[in-house]
Amino acid sequence: MNTIPWQDKPINSNEVIWRYSENPIINRDQIPTSNSIFNSAVVPFKDGFAGVFRCDNKAVQMNIFAGFSKNGIDWNINHEPIEMKAGNTEMIDSDYKYDPRVVFIEDRYWITWCNGYHGPTIGIAYTFDFVEFFQCENAFLPFNRNGVLFPQKINGKYAMLSRPSDNGHTPFGDIYISYSPDMKFWGEHRCVMKATAFEDSAWQCTKIGAGPIPILTNEGWLMLYHGVINTCNGFRYAMGAAILDENQPDNVKYRTQPYLLGPQVNYEQVGDVPNVVFPCAALHDIEQDKLAIYYGAADTVVALAYGKISEVIQYTKENSL
Amino acid sequence: MNTIPWQDKPINSNEVIWRYSENPIINRDQIPTSNSIFNSAVVPFKDGFAGVFRCDNKAVQMNIFAGFSKNGIDWNINHEPIEMKAGNTEMIDSDYKYDPRVVFIEDRYWITWCNGYHGPTIGIAYTFDFVEFFQCENAFLPFNRNGVLFPQKINGKYAMLSRPSDNGHTPFGDIYISYSPDMKFWGEHRCVMKATAFEDSAWQCTKIGAGPIPILTNEGWLMLYHGVINTCNGFRYAMGAAILDENQPDNVKYRTQPYLLGPQVNYEQVGDVPNVVFPCAALHDIEQDKLAIYYGAADTVVALAYGKISEVIQYTKENSL
Amino acid sequence: MNTIPWQDKPINSNEVIWRYSENPIINRDQIPTSNSIFNSAVVPFKDGFAGVFRCDNKAVQMNIFAGFSKNGIDWNINHEPIEMKAGNTEMIDSDYKYDPRVVFIEDRYWITWCNGYHGPTIGIAYTFDFVEFFQCENAFLPFNRNGVLFPQKINGKYAMLSRPSDNGHTPFGDIYISYSPDMKFWGEHRCVMKATAFEDSAWQCTKIGAGPIPILTNEGWLMLYHGVINTCNGFRYAMGAAILDENQPDNVKYRTQPYLLGPQVNYEQVGDVPNVVFPCAALHDIEQDKLAIYYGAADTVVALAYGKISEVIQYTKENSL
Amino acid sequence: MNTIPWQDKPINSNEVIWRYSENPIINRDQIPTSNSIFNSAVVPFKDGFAGVFRCDNKAVQMNIFAGFSKNGIDWNINHEPIEMKAGNTEMIDSDYKYDPRVVFIEDRYWITWCNGYHGPTIGIAYTFDFVEFFQCENAFLPFNRNGVLFPQKINGKYAMLSRPSDNGHTPFGDIYISYSPDMKFWGEHRCVMKATAFEDSAWQCTKIGAGPIPILTNEGWLMLYHGVINTCNGFRYAMGAAILDENQPDNVKYRTQPYLLGPQVNYEQVGDVPNVVFPCAALHDIEQDKLAIYYGAADTVVALAYGKISEVIQYTKENSL
Amino acid sequence: MNTIPWQDKPINSNEVIWRYSENPIINRDQIPTSNSIFNSAVVPFKDGFAGVFRCDNKAVQMNIFAGFSKNGIDWNINHEPIEMKAGNTEMIDSDYKYDPRVVFIEDRYWITWCNGYHGPTIGIAYTFDFVEFFQCENAFLPFNRNGVLFPQKINGKYAMLSRPSDNGHTPFGDIYISYSPDMKFWGEHRCVMKATAFEDSAWQCTKIGAGPIPILTNEGWLMLYHGVINTCNGFRYAMGAAILDENQPDNVKYRTQPYLLGPQVNYEQVGDVPNVVFPCAALHDIEQDKLAIYYGAADTVVALAYGKISEVIQYTKENSL
Amino acid sequence: MNTIPWQDKPINSNEVIWRYSENPIINRDQIPTSNSIFNSAVVPFKDGFAGVFRCDNKAVQMNIFAGFSKNGIDWNINHEPIEMKAGNTEMIDSDYKYDPRVVFIEDRYWITWCNGYHGPTIGIAYTFDFVEFFQCENAFLPFNRNGVLFPQKINGKYAMLSRPSDNGHTPFGDIYISYSPDMKFWGEHRCVMKATAFEDSAWQCTKIGAGPIPILTNEGWLMLYHGVINTCNGFRYAMGAAILDENQPDNVKYRTQPYLLGPQVNYEQVGDVPNVVFPCAALHDIEQDKLAIYYGAADTVVALAYGKISEVIQYTKENSL
Repeated sequence: MNTIPWQDKPINSNEVIWRYSENPIINRDQIPTSNSIFNSAVVPFKDGFAGVFRCDNKAVQMNIFAGFSKNGIDWNINHEPIEMKAGNTEMIDSDYKYDPRVVFIEDRYWITWCNGYHGPTIGIAYTFDFVEFFQCENAFLPFNRNGVLFPQKINGKYAMLSRPSDNGHTPFGDIYISYSPDMKFWGEHRCVMKATAFEDSAWQCTKIGAGPIPILTNEGWLMLYHGVINTCNGFRYAMGAAILDENQPDNVKYRTQPYLLGPQVNYEQVGDVPNVVFPCAALHDIEQDKLAIYYGAADTVVALAYGKISEVIQYTKENSL
Repeated sequence: MNTIPWQDKPINSNEVIWRYSENPIINRDQIPTSNSIFNSAVVPFKDGFAGVFRCDNKAVQMNIFAGFSKNGIDWNINHEPIEMKAGNTEMIDSDYKYDPRVVFIEDRYWITWCNGYHGPTIGIAYTFDFVEFFQCENAFLPFNRNGVLFPQKINGKYAMLSRPSDNGHTPFGDIYISYSPDMKFWGEHRCVMKATAFEDSAWQCTKIGAGPIPILTNEGWLMLYHGVINTCNGFRYAMGAAILDENQPDNVKYRTQPYLLGPQVNYEQVGDVPNVVFPCAALHDIEQDKLAIYYGAADTVVALAYGKISEVIQYTKENSL
Repeated sequence: MNTIPWQDKPINSNEVIWRYSENPIINRDQIPTSNSIFNSAVVPFKDGFAGVFRCDNKAVQMNIFAGFSKNGIDWNINHEPIEMKAGNTEMIDSDYKYDPRVVFIEDRYWITWCNGYHGPTIGIAYTFDFVEFFQCENAFLPFNRNGVLFPQKINGKYAMLSRPSDNGHTPFGDIYISYSPDMKFWGEHRCVMKATAFEDSAWQCTKIGAGPIPILTNEGWLMLYHGVINTCNGFRYAMGAAILDENQPDNVKYRTQPYLLGPQVNYEQVGDVPNVVFPCAALHDIEQDKLAIYYGAADTVVALAYGKISEVIQYTKENSL
Repeated sequence: MNTIPWQDKPINSNEVIWRYSENPIINRDQIPTSNSIFNSAVVPFKDGFAGVFRCDNKAVQMNIFAGFSKNGIDWNINHEPIEMKAGNTEMIDSDYKYDPRVVFIEDRYWITWCNGYHGPTIGIAYTFDFVEFFQCENAFLPFNRNGVLFPQKINGKYAMLSRPSDNGHTPFGDIYISYSPDMKFWGEHRCVMKATAFEDSAWQCTKIGAGPIPILTNEGWLMLYHGVINTCNGFRYAMGAAILDENQPDNVKYRTQPYLLGPQVNYEQVGDVPNVVFPCAALHDIEQDKLAIYYGAADTVVALAYGKISEVIQYTKENSL
Repeated sequence: MNTIPWQDKPINSNEVIWRYSENPIINRDQIPTSNSIFNSAVVPFKDGFAGVFRCDNKAVQMNIFAGFSKNGIDWNINHEPIEMKAGNTEMIDSDYKYDPRVVFIEDRYWITWCNGYHGPTIGIAYTFDFVEFFQCENAFLPFNRNGVLFPQKINGKYAMLSRPSDNGHTPFGDIYISYSPDMKFWGEHRCVMKATAFEDSAWQCTKIGAGPIPILTNEGWLMLYHGVINTCNGFRYAMGAAILDENQPDNVKYRTQPYLLGPQVNYEQVGDVPNVVFPCAALHDIEQDKLAIYYGAADTVVALAYGKISEVIQYTKENSL
Repeated sequence: MNTIPWQDKPINSNEVIWRYSENPIINRDQIPTSNSIFNSAVVPFKDGFAGVFRCDNKAVQMNIFAGFSKNGIDWNINHEPIEMKAGNTEMIDSDYKYDPRVVFIEDRYWITWCNGYHGPTIGIAYTFDFVEFFQCENAFLPFNRNGVLFPQKINGKYAMLSRPSDNGHTPFGDIYISYSPDMKFWGEHRCVMKATAFEDSAWQCTKIGAGPIPILTNEGWLMLYHGVINTCNGFRYAMGAAILDENQPDNVKYRTQPYLLGPQVNYEQVGDVPNVVFPCAALHDIEQDKLAIYYGAADTVVALAYGKISEVIQYTKENSL
């Protein structure tokens, strides 16, 4: 197994999730054309790691780029965006691509992202090697964002979380699950969990969306997600966790009332979009009880945070809505 | 074949579509509990006709009711709404039901409607007899409206038009097509046609949505649809026509730049929502070249309009965008 | 006791509330300066009736006018607005006055209305003779509308229903109750009832507001009120009923899920503001079981509707949310 | 002088402006392609009258058409829109044309209208014969509407009223005056009059715009204009009058606090845009003290109203803000 | 008398109000559960100081906590929120509590705050010891914020400043005063001062609200307040001062046209809500002419600023609107 | 020729435009009354430089001030705003003045700015000495901003770029050109370039506006401009470049798809309006191929950036939309 990035919890800290001391790990201008690099996804690959990165260029066009790393911290990101070939269908229009997630299922790596097809919807592609990518049918009609696959079939079908949206800075949003026998046709849509009442948990009262690929634990699926509050000065994004039933994931067993990580340091508070913590991937090592969370900060850079899986689960159970 | 309702074009009229002189054919209070009856669908059934009617009750709760008619004009509508049984899945939540369409495919009648499942989406049910109804999986995630099935499979799959929406009085909306092998999982979503530029055809510049079940003609699929303009005093709904390629319906061959029927008489201009012409069904007789269009008027009553299929096609071709 | 207006229920009608056949009883131009006369209040007075009428003039300035009638149907409305004298305080600013209610308590007639004091709030005045009027302190801070007094003290205090608002075409609004020992200082504010969920009763899902003075019955206080739905073509106002606990009126015992009267005839559907039924007063005769409801129609004229008190109560209990 | 249309004031009427009994004089479908004909302008021409008419076609595209009449009431409107030739410049883009005004100055007829050039602005053209039209430079940058020329130069320059706008259903709007030495370059912009405070005159509190060509009287320029109030069910347009200083028209001498004509009959209250009275032209006969006002009703038809010039002036002076 | 915090004005500074060099004095995570601590109030208590602190927890639920300090700078804040007992009424619902103020009147300490009762309104409680707190009737109907008591009765009645609001990020807001004979019933509402015209003083042109308890001086009541401007990137809060007539406080004698303190340093410019200076309390020592102002910074931390009372008064008089 | 400010490109930098290492060159409090100094213009004057500075005072009133510098970096700004005398007309109202530009044409310096005349429009003044200023007619009707003159007549007329707006935080905006024979009357309005489609270049997809005075080069007019994207946390302003045809400047030859300078350092990201880079002036030395750009940062301070003219042109050509 690949050794995931790690840094012990600072002494005297009682946080469940703590920031990497060398954050941000990827700067906004790490490739020559980039205005910002954030909201990106990584996955173990060969003896290291591969990733798909959201790099907005200096025209602020959104696209996804492949990258590679030995240690999960120092990344070489390609200077050219991923070029798709036709997968399970003809080539689909794609006005833009952003906020990728990556997961290995059975024999290949699947990438999902917010795909511009007459508005945002969920794009799907697969790759075996992070060199050739094959774009498949969009999962849904527009408007949708934050499509996140489960890492294995559930009841014999692929399963995807997503957040139906509108065509702007959507001021609402709940998490749904959908199933597919073939990664082409989707159905059996169920609501998983909704934005909260303001009084119950204000940081997630405007909208919520799934983050990294869910992680199967003894308690069920550990789903990290982002929640949004609409302040008088705009949206503020923070991260929470939920535990979903293993076989019926629309059954939410636990869900954090408090956030686990909110924008509190400069690279999260200041940037193209201030006050954003937006997790898109998490490496985990069940045996070592380690979790390394990759998150976009201020829509500008990529940062890393760590936690103990068992502590996250325990905290989620003890602080559940 | 059942004899569809008909009334000849008034002398001196040069309209392509003309109103039935005895409109409205269904009044707002035709059943004891109804506030309004409109946006309803009919289909040939046995030696007469059956229908599914949107009857909002006096609490202004929206539901659908079965009804029957010998002549397609005088209708007996059940006083109780349709009670669904489980179809191809467990029972799906349904906070409300409105704007039904009905179509016979292969061996049964399929009903689609706007189904309240955490917001509007497309509900599906089937019946063999208009007595027992079996509710299936919703076709899509919310938010969606105006789901309209084609009357036969296309390239071996069920095909459905729909209009992705948001959760309010949606100020945008285009027509898409999606396919399903099994009426359960849907995919291969393609954009069919969009609201127009204001300068090109203002009556359909805010949003559009499919109306009756498309009719297969020599030219392709005849699709009647509604278009909306946002005036300074609210939305105004009118009706147009398009002709879609028979085998690839996302290929729009013709589309009326002018509307075919707009709100111009009192029962269309005055009611719960003024200035609405909203077609949901059309009986047709290809041999006799007759078309009888059922439309909701002012969100209050059901009215009927007639046309010659050949004239509608000719007009659509000659006045195409 | 004064004989209140009456007209028997039309044969074959099964409505709980039915319209007066000679509606509207007051036309928009009944006084020389008026653009419209609507949302007005009447009360038994001497051997006939007195009233306070909202007459918007042709500059569309809103003011209230006294009027008198022998039979409650034919009204002489003064051509000059009510001129206030100082009541329990110095003279309060009043940029405009609209939507009056009138009630007799103990020794005098109290008028409440929507008073323009840096925005809408609740104005209060009293009169003994409908000639001299004495303006008191506003009940509340802005913004508020639809202040309606109970016709007797409750637990030794004056009691007033009201609907907190904002300063525009308020898209929300619930009914509260407040108490006063002296018609000057108000407190003990309690929420009485709220706008409904769309699914439960859409006609009252945007906002609600008290209408006529509540009527004490064996079942408790009969409160007629208006409810509003926000259609894609604007607000639609209808009328419902609720029964409040006699001694603790913030305890709602019953509340109609259906509306009792909605805009369905031309003078309610067409006018300065289409689709408005807005009740502001009700004469009642408990012994004869009669109710005569005065309501503004389309913000343009005054109309009258009738009902049996016992039937309204029974209907409210049987059709309660 | 051409005999302008006339009908005496109805007996018992005390209105300053009264409607023509045969209204509307132009129906929505008076030419084959029209959805609606409204907001149009007329002018004495030869031994009769000529006009420029806003005819929206059934695609709801807005364009202007020439028409002719012997008596000012019965009109022959061309079936093809006006085709412009280049006037004092190259041909200007014109995505749409609406709300024309016409005036004779010195040697020719000038037409102004709302011209679609990257949004609404003021188009200008001239004609000698209503057969050939020559389009000149737009007067202003977008966004602007209701450009109305004075019928003679003021202080040696052409003078135009207009109402700066935005690119939608503008919720604000005041009347300005601008001057030009040559009908090409415009400057010396001055604010003439603004929408009123709600408390002062609510019918004109949202926006105002000049209507017909101003008429020179002994008191100064008589300017009829429209005012708008934003009700909870949309905009309502009515007509008022102002008197401007002859030599310095941004000096408003009088301005009606009440409206002179508001939407109160069916063809003004019901149509594509309910509750609109929108004057665009006025024929006058100073000697006979007659005024014939052409106005669009409900954005659907053209209607006619009459008044005595002297009475309008007197009323304006006596009811001035 | 307790010695209030103090730090001399920096040499070379010509500011009327200067920041404490050790700001912020309370960090966001000063208690284990807190996401942020800000907008809090302090008062002399025994030989030191007591306070009521707004601590939003990590679920971003808003509540108030008692705290104690010897020197007014170093604070021990309880880890549990204040638990209320019934005061002059039954227990009132309280969905949330924020933005407290504290004042000693006659024999006890009164706390007012923004109380969640079907939306924000003004909650009232008293304590003798900051251990037991007794919650009283809400002062007003919703929606209201920034309720601030005067430190003594005026004309024999309690007096409270407040700012009527709506139920969101209110884009308007003026300061009113209301009176009560008994802290239960409130009336005699008067407008004190309004947001300014943009041209006159833009920093306070969107809304204003009272800050600390007013201080009685020779010139009248010194009222510090916040003002808000709506920039294209959200609200910006700054602080000004006004002097109100001692006996009739709705008579504003002076009011600063410039702000006294605006967000200009990092802890005011960066945080959960950037660019916020929000004063809620001020300790003063008339004899020593000292003022210590406690203010929330960026909705995240508590900071302290100092000034000379005489200089604030002089500046307010010399820079009055 | 005056020596313009300069600093060589940092080694290893491959930026076309680079920041001055001593930024900001003017702080927010550089004059005693100022809240902020930004969006200002400079020009060679005598043996040094003169400028017109936007200094918002502590009441956040916007006005323009003259200033002088020997080296273009260290500035003495007058403590009193510019006092205008009547130029080519009577004195025009000016509620506020902001965002000035300055240019020398023929015999004098012309200043344009956003002038408050019933909303924002373009004010014009001239000076010979930066001591006496003469205010002329406003160029346009409201609403307009960012009026920028060309430094010489084009085809014999003065030419001005501007951006038609509305009266708030305008969410749209394109660049137009207008011509004048006399700096008094303006016409021949042409659209120059528009905000882009989101997909094409998102940083300039909401609105754009001209920046410094265009510079005549071999390729045509080099126009630096600002573009805006509307993020979920407000507007973000960056800078691009376009090259306009020398004789017909509405012909855009090239336009940067990427931005040249975006908010990426603290003084651009944090301030009264975060994330703003707003260029208003550029000194240039064609022979030395130097460009010194003055821009407002975060609506708070003035900063300086440098570039090679030839590189900017080359980059614009090679990265054109």
